Amino acid sequence: VKAFKSTAIARLLADAGHVNFCGATIRELEGLAAAGLGTDLLLANEVLDATRLGALVEDGNRVTVAVDSAETIDAAAAGGVHEVLIDVEVGMPRCGCLPKDAGRIADLARAAGLEVRGVMGYEGHLMMADAEKKPGAVEASMAKLLAAHELVGGDVVSGGGTGTYDVNTWVTEVQAGSYCLLDTDYAKLDSPFEIAISVLGTVISTHPKGWAVSDTGLKSFGMDHGAPTWTGGDLLFCADEHATLLDPEGTLSVGDRVRLLPGHLDPTVARHKVMWVVDGDTIVDRWPIDLRHW
Amino acid sequence: VKAFKSTAIARLLADAGHVNFCGATIRELEGLAAAGLGTDLLLANEVLDATRLGALVEDGNRVTVAVDSAETIDAAAAGGVHEVLIDVEVGMPRCGCLPKDAGRIADLARAAGLEVRGVMGYEGHLMMADAEKKPGAVEASMAKLLAAHELVGGDVVSGGGTGTYDVNTWVTEVQAGSYCLLDTDYAKLDSPFEIAISVLGTVISTHPKGWAVSDTGLKSFGMDHGAPTWTGGDLLFCADEHATLLDPEGTLSVGDRVRLLPGHLDPTVARHKVMWVVDGDTIVDRWPIDLRHW
Repeated sequence: VKAFKSTAIARLLADAGHVNFCGATIRELEGLAAAGLGTDLLLANEVLDATRLGALVEDGNRVTVAVDSAETIDAAAAGGVHEVLIDVEVGMPRCGCLPKDAGRIADLARAAGLEVRGVMGYEGHLMMADAEKKPGAVEASMAKLLAAHELVGGDVVSGGGTGTYDVNTWVTEVQAGSYCLLDTDYAKLDSPFEIAISVLGTVISTHPKGWAVSDTGLKSFGMDHGAPTWTGGDLLFCADEHATLLDPEGTLSVGDRVRLLPGHLDPTVARHKVMWVVDGDTIVDRWPIDLRHW
Repeated sequence: VKAFKSTAIARLLADAGHVNFCGATIRELEGLAAAGLGTDLLLANEVLDATRLGALVEDGNRVTVAVDSAETIDAAAAGGVHEVLIDVEVGMPRCGCLPKDAGRIADLARAAGLEVRGVMGYEGHLMMADAEKKPGAVEASMAKLLAAHELVGGDVVSGGGTGTYDVNTWVTEVQAGSYCLLDTDYAKLDSPFEIAISVLGTVISTHPKGWAVSDTGLKSFGMDHGAPTWTGGDLLFCADEHATLLDPEGTLSVGDRVRLLPGHLDPTVARHKVMWVVDGDTIVDRWPIDLRHW
């Protein structure tokens, strides 16, 4: 859910039969639980204070948390979370232990009274890999995860994402979320998913030298994958509350609406309070972005 | 206020004698007014619906809005705002009319019953200009604004920012705000201002290959000026909820706090709900970031 941060979308997924959810923040899991979606929640991230997660367990939700160290195991146990996955580094320099250490960490977890459900390892560095090299690279990455799983045991092998779901045949569950709404970065991949999200701006100024200005800027977009894409032409740059659009023919007028597609979905969604669901130009629903913050 | 988005800081400025404020969004002006800081508020931006600004005027606040077209003039008049500045493009491709058109637009505004207080023009493209070339470049930019002012009249010539406040001797008011907290980009300038803001992360994972992971990522920072700077060494990359820090000596432990400095203040502040004011390691105050959103 970290990509779309809305229980409205999670509810649609649950109604379609997908009742297990994975998040990156405690807040996301709290929101899912509050929405009655606490059947099987995974915090695919390490935390050092699991008391808020323990409260969710106390309330009858199933919560599993990733651990990769004695400290995160202690936090899970102290906080009242009873189930964990061993997080394994599978090639991306982020969280997760070495595969060879996974068994030792699982033993630590069991000694702390925790149920070890299996392993997780996120091959995030391969999401945008070259299509020809991707299957082999994912296989090599997942070989590390499976080696760790041999040492750990359990039913769950969790990993993958929107960029590898189709070639990662080794995991028992895929941690994909971006596919629901996509962005211009993921849209570069050959996939069946389409961009369903945009930020709608209003032209507040036009200039005889050939540009127009939309009231959507750095505070409306995640910019780590670069500037958004204007569906009507080239975007020159973004400022805090503006996007300057190249309009040499002067086709835009003050008051026109312009549609900008985010380069990176997750941090863009996190900047807004609500998504308006549209069918053409008709608003058909309103989805609060209720899983924001921490 | 668009840089720091907090009425707590605005209040400190007002207490120090600086009672005029400039914002980029209607929400910012509403927040200032609600905090009793509505002595003289400038929305240094174009809007097509000024009814919320008009409501502030109705409540006894002084509100001036930038206009650069017939449409924005009509919006100001219809919304109940009585005072405007003519926004002039002075070299940065964003809002603002051509200098030669400023007199005509001022006439339109006056014909609509608006009081024209003067002109504004933001030389944002020169904030980070080479120190030797900056004074001449700002002078050339401000010559455009002064030419427009000749045509428009009024007491106000508004422009400038944290990067040009010391060389822009032509404006009657400087639209600076970043200087209050600064960021690593503005810190490259030779200025008396220092970085007062950081995002405090917690190390949630360490890896034997020589890195550590902080729980602060793309959703905690504005990334348009690049990744944040870790005060303890090199930052490898940011993911949504993580920053991977290079730690070849293994000096960091799980649970350690790490301080990350934003590359761009404004969109970073806009991602958070509150600033904690610290004296060393002691929290001495809490400043809500109450001017977020639109």
